[in-house]
Amino acid sequence: TLVELFFQRCPGCWKMLTVAMCMALLGCLQARELQGHVSVILLGATGDLARKYLWQGLFQLYLDEAGKAYNFSFHGAALTDTRQGQEFIAKVLESLSCPVDVAPGRCAELKGQFQRLSGYRRLRTREDYMALSTDIEARVQHEGLREAGRIFYFSVPPFAYADIARNINSSCRPGPGAWLRVVLEKPFGHDHLSAQQLATELGSFFREEEMYRVDHYLGKQVVAQILPFRDQNRKALDGLWNRHHVERVEIIMKETVDAEGRTGFYEQYGVIRDVLQNHLTEVLTLVAMELPHNASSSESVLQHKLRAFRALRGLQKGSAVLGQYQAYSEQVRREQQKPDTFHSRTPTFAGVLVLIDNLRWEGVPFILMSGKALDERVGYVRVLFRNRAYCTQNRERWVAGQSPCLPRQIVFHVGHGQLGVPAVLVSRNLFRPSLPPGSWKELEGRPGLHLFGRPLSDYYAYSPVREQDAYSVLISHIFHGRKDSFITTENLLASWGFWTPLLDSLAHEAPRLYPGGAENGHLLDFEFRGAQLCFSQQQPERLVPEPGSAPTPSAFQVLRATYRDSPLISAWPEELIAKLADDIEAAAVRAVRRAGTFHLALSGGSSPVPLFQQLATGHYGFPWAHTHLWQVDERCVPLWDPESNFQALQAHLLQHIRVPYYNVHPMPVHLHQRLCAEEDRGPQMYASEISALVANSSFDLVLLGMGMDGHTASLFPHSPAGLDGEPLVVLTESPSAPQQRMSLSLPLINRARKVAILVMGRVKREITLLVSRVGHEPKKWPISGVLPGSGQLVWYMDYEAFLG
Amino acid sequence: TLVELFFQRCPGCWKMLTVAMCMALLGCLQARELQGHVSVILLGATGDLARKYLWQGLFQLYLDEAGKAYNFSFHGAALTDTRQGQEFIAKVLESLSCPVDVAPGRCAELKGQFQRLSGYRRLRTREDYMALSTDIEARVQHEGLREAGRIFYFSVPPFAYADIARNINSSCRPGPGAWLRVVLEKPFGHDHLSAQQLATELGSFFREEEMYRVDHYLGKQVVAQILPFRDQNRKALDGLWNRHHVERVEIIMKETVDAEGRTGFYEQYGVIRDVLQNHLTEVLTLVAMELPHNASSSESVLQHKLRAFRALRGLQKGSAVLGQYQAYSEQVRREQQKPDTFHSRTPTFAGVLVLIDNLRWEGVPFILMSGKALDERVGYVRVLFRNRAYCTQNRERWVAGQSPCLPRQIVFHVGHGQLGVPAVLVSRNLFRPSLPPGSWKELEGRPGLHLFGRPLSDYYAYSPVREQDAYSVLISHIFHGRKDSFITTENLLASWGFWTPLLDSLAHEAPRLYPGGAENGHLLDFEFRGAQLCFSQQQPERLVPEPGSAPTPSAFQVLRATYRDSPLISAWPEELIAKLADDIEAAAVRAVRRAGTFHLALSGGSSPVPLFQQLATGHYGFPWAHTHLWQVDERCVPLWDPESNFQALQAHLLQHIRVPYYNVHPMPVHLHQRLCAEEDRGPQMYASEISALVANSSFDLVLLGMGMDGHTASLFPHSPAGLDGEPLVVLTESPSAPQQRMSLSLPLINRARKVAILVMGRVKREITLLVSRVGHEPKKWPISGVLPGSGQLVWYMDYEAFLG
Repeated sequence: TLVELFFQRCPGCWKMLTVAMCMALLGCLQARELQGHVSVILLGATGDLARKYLWQGLFQLYLDEAGKAYNFSFHGAALTDTRQGQEFIAKVLESLSCPVDVAPGRCAELKGQFQRLSGYRRLRTREDYMALSTDIEARVQHEGLREAGRIFYFSVPPFAYADIARNINSSCRPGPGAWLRVVLEKPFGHDHLSAQQLATELGSFFREEEMYRVDHYLGKQVVAQILPFRDQNRKALDGLWNRHHVERVEIIMKETVDAEGRTGFYEQYGVIRDVLQNHLTEVLTLVAMELPHNASSSESVLQHKLRAFRALRGLQKGSAVLGQYQAYSEQVRREQQKPDTFHSRTPTFAGVLVLIDNLRWEGVPFILMSGKALDERVGYVRVLFRNRAYCTQNRERWVAGQSPCLPRQIVFHVGHGQLGVPAVLVSRNLFRPSLPPGSWKELEGRPGLHLFGRPLSDYYAYSPVREQDAYSVLISHIFHGRKDSFITTENLLASWGFWTPLLDSLAHEAPRLYPGGAENGHLLDFEFRGAQLCFSQQQPERLVPEPGSAPTPSAFQVLRATYRDSPLISAWPEELIAKLADDIEAAAVRAVRRAGTFHLALSGGSSPVPLFQQLATGHYGFPWAHTHLWQVDERCVPLWDPESNFQALQAHLLQHIRVPYYNVHPMPVHLHQRLCAEEDRGPQMYASEISALVANSSFDLVLLGMGMDGHTASLFPHSPAGLDGEPLVVLTESPSAPQQRMSLSLPLINRARKVAILVMGRVKREITLLVSRVGHEPKKWPISGVLPGSGQLVWYMDYEAFLG
Repeated sequence: TLVELFFQRCPGCWKMLTVAMCMALLGCLQARELQGHVSVILLGATGDLARKYLWQGLFQLYLDEAGKAYNFSFHGAALTDTRQGQEFIAKVLESLSCPVDVAPGRCAELKGQFQRLSGYRRLRTREDYMALSTDIEARVQHEGLREAGRIFYFSVPPFAYADIARNINSSCRPGPGAWLRVVLEKPFGHDHLSAQQLATELGSFFREEEMYRVDHYLGKQVVAQILPFRDQNRKALDGLWNRHHVERVEIIMKETVDAEGRTGFYEQYGVIRDVLQNHLTEVLTLVAMELPHNASSSESVLQHKLRAFRALRGLQKGSAVLGQYQAYSEQVRREQQKPDTFHSRTPTFAGVLVLIDNLRWEGVPFILMSGKALDERVGYVRVLFRNRAYCTQNRERWVAGQSPCLPRQIVFHVGHGQLGVPAVLVSRNLFRPSLPPGSWKELEGRPGLHLFGRPLSDYYAYSPVREQDAYSVLISHIFHGRKDSFITTENLLASWGFWTPLLDSLAHEAPRLYPGGAENGHLLDFEFRGAQLCFSQQQPERLVPEPGSAPTPSAFQVLRATYRDSPLISAWPEELIAKLADDIEAAAVRAVRRAGTFHLALSGGSSPVPLFQQLATGHYGFPWAHTHLWQVDERCVPLWDPESNFQALQAHLLQHIRVPYYNVHPMPVHLHQRLCAEEDRGPQMYASEISALVANSSFDLVLLGMGMDGHTASLFPHSPAGLDGEPLVVLTESPSAPQQRMSLSLPLINRARKVAILVMGRVKREITLLVSRVGHEPKKWPISGVLPGSGQLVWYMDYEAFLG
């Protein structure tokens, strides 16, 4: 017989067959042992979401799982009275559809089975919930099963949450040994505070592991494939998935529809809360997170996701550009009965630049963008790799799939767009990706179709064998307890913690108006410079200055004058800082040419911070490798204390330049684990370090500030230390905390080749005026004692300090 | 009259006219005062270069300058006898051409004038040079002029230089008050040493300012325009010309011809000496140098150029890819009468990656490429800017000149290629450049022509109004003393200093063979990873392993065993380092999770360097911000001494990661400006720093090595310090210089949670064998005393150390 023939040809097959049979038997036995009952209660069963997606998702769950380890009952629930509810449910159940590969007869049969397991009941009072619980228990007992668990799906508005949650918790929990899962739909708050309140409230009814917060984007097949793709292509991606290779990541959701008919909701949320804070941020973490060793462990995934949140650099006003389609305000006025004078500031378009401060992603721009009334409907994540090749032949001879100079990209195409289907695309000159062969298939060619600048044929392109709705996917994940497809409380709060400062800072910004659709042209294109975003095109309107407004900076030149018989340079802040930075660089270049080194002593305080930033980013010719950095003064706190002057130096200057470690000379305020103890002789140590390294103890440049009380460095009025005498470095006491300070002395400062005093801001106006009149009274006004013996003194004041 | 009318309408014009006339008069008077005579002596006047370019260049000089401040005489000179020479010169002079805008009659007149000023003379002996000098002086005196200067143009082979130079110097220098300029043609040596010898020899005859070394590439109109372009577009380029905006720079010279007929020369030089060391390097410095405030000052330009050389990162074998067209060896065999077995290793193609270590260019790849027998003839410099924009519309709606997402580039198109003419191209979405309007004009449209991936219409494109030959340009610059268009001795030696190490390291490399022309396909495409270049496609030949060759690394797995009763991990060096780095990262992650910090103590020596590099570049998840770095041992030298262990740590690890300043703990070997003085109590200081910061003084991980004498850390055999007792840190003496050391003690090391000992290289084989057999004898073998009390000890040995 055929069977005999088969085993003749394959002697080892006996063994395999035996093993396979054993396993099947074992599975069967296990299933019987575990046979349990799961009740699904759909709250808001007559609503839109339920009608459109959830019932279908539950039917799919039934098709996938019934006859395996569990059996089911499905309870539609709402406030509607029982008869109306039943009629509604009956209609919905009738309209359910089977997968395309199920024959019509079989489909009717399956639908019939599902309908018999499903029913409607009104759930309003505590008693209703108690009754439901009793009914479930009775049914389980009657059928000789074990209760496995209950799923409550909250498809209701958030204001209804608390009541329902209380009733479930008090009166409808399953007995011991069975689980409870409650499924929640967004919005999960409006900002960090409200999200926290909501979470606390829910937390009083449910344990964390019982809550499943839905972001339906995580159920989209392509989004759900991001981590598995990274996992299954680990080898190819290992060396590529980092800042050395990735040029940028774009996470995009464009819509053509506008908010008409939904402005009541939209006006309170706007695009950032509606799309970016949830959908796009979730995708961002999936792309950016470190891949756990075991990518199928929910716990590891959630942990790594949370760590990715922690690495996100904080957003600032300049991190975003906002737009609003022109018809929006009119729609709000109409739908919300607002007066004609009403203009909404709710953004319907946002582009946000996210940077990640870890070694993998440092410097790689993650661009998040979403908007309504745009030119096309499409969602995608595009990872563009850097071009690190030079192609020797003329470009006309480049061959796709062979040329390393053609763009290399991986696109997770969530849906819509010109392609029309969900797909994963990998440039052929990158690598051939591996996708689960049963559920993903290669896309067929579509001549003429270009995606992201290249013909479709340039990509390995895969799409799902069977398109699945996001809710079906998620309902299956709820049933299997795959918590990594849902938003944990920590995750939710981390996301709001990230977005809330931006939302706050943008609250009063006017978005740029755009006409909508293809007419937007290049109006919404945006660019980044460092961590700042701005629109590429100037705002088309001409800004009319308000009457009496301040003159613009460009209206003034840098002003040269004298102050206390020394040169004074005055300008608007930005020009002043630029001029001072130029002067410091020029001094550095001269000193290095003359002596091989440049000794620069820097003051603490907030004024020098923009100077540090300017020096760090704008001065490519600065001879940092030959520069020694000294401190003019320091607070007696550890170097890593946020109050430490050194900390500001580190954050705004040292981080960005390459000064050798041993050219940095922090003041020794922290010796032998104590702060500025006399017996540790910190000042003497610093003085001898200066004497040893700085020729003549004469710094090339000392940068000072001036306090509102006339102090400079950490030399304070009516305090004798450091004003004269031998010591080069002294301990002093400040009138304000932290009191203890270390400071260069006046005699040391006055040995410098150049002293620059930087004074900025309106608050300095009074002291500026006062000091202009006093003579040499260092005891009263320490600043008046700054008089370099053979060096030069220059004052740098902005107009507000100088002119008030 | 019209004139009256004119001055009625423009009353101020009287004044302007007066000023203009005064200035004209003044110019005229100055000219008369300076009227001087310049003699140009063209040595090798009958050679190819002279015939093709130099006489035409001299005629152009005459046309441009005669009748201004100077008058001229032109002396063709050679070894040929006088009559033959005169005939040759007469023929050349007859063939000279005038600029296109000169009428034929006028042209004949001008040529006649030039011919009357030109003559031939034989220059062979010292007497010939003396006679020339006498003749020039007589002529000057006879015509009542002042001698202004003499130009000697050496169009002769280098072996003739010395004699000619000696004769000029001894017998043909002009008198006081007149200048001497000698013009030299390449090659200027073959490497750094030969260039230096040649320079020294010439330096014995001429002063630096008298020598003009020609690189004719600097006379190409587009190359000569690079600095003026940067200067005239300073405002637009100021923010763009740096690593934040430039993605890459390509400096390319492709040829279609091969070396046939010239292999005698070529076989000694190859493409790097022939093109890259001179032409492309000169262009590189013009692009990369800091722009002097006064870009028309030769001195400033030369200084800044030299500074650019100093910032170039040294080249290594891996910085280049080499090719040779397949027919080359056969051509050499034929032309040089070589045997059939001869195979040349001379490269006819090279791609080189140059990196510049300054803040402006750090990390920007400069790609230099040249080759013979390629698919097209073209020369260009392409500066490609980063795309820092996101364009909201679908790509089909992008408009050139408006879209910030289309490529932005500046191309200095030296010549040939599809464009066919020299040109400067600036993408329209960048800025409208300014070029000297008299001499540069906008290029006309050429529908269908694409350059660098975009249609010509996407660029502002300018080409010279009048195309000028490079030699005409350079002869004019020699006359005007514009030394910045020539190669100074310093510049020449800097360039050879840069290229010679690469040439040496490549001397025995076999270049990849290529078929030539369009058939090269993608064979010569190359890619970079870090500072390394490699061909994008694998070498098509299969490598046959030599008999008895070592097995490849992949043939072995990482081996696990025990050694001295502790775990041993053994592998090939690369795998071993990767494994150790992984283990350290895992330990760091665990420690930070447990305690918030990770305390890592690192040994000096050369073995850890690849580990540092691995950690710096491959470990994105490493919690550096929470890591404290300590030293296991240090030499008693200043931290910045090249011998210092800290220096290696700084160069290979600290430079590349972001550890906060105060988490770095160098050993205090240098206190109070002295090294390891007992009374400075450095060891006690370090010990108390450890006690204060490291819980229990128990490091999370200590990395040790093992010396060939069995020492570890800086604990040496037969030396008691640090083997037992109280002190955590000790001063010790090494048998080899520098003798004084500071080291952690054995008791402190043995308190660590984990100790890793890294042993690499065949030289360690003996000690490895020996130590495997000894017991606990720390006095004899300090390494045998490493026995962590409650921690773990792991040995990491490569196969050569372990298996020999």
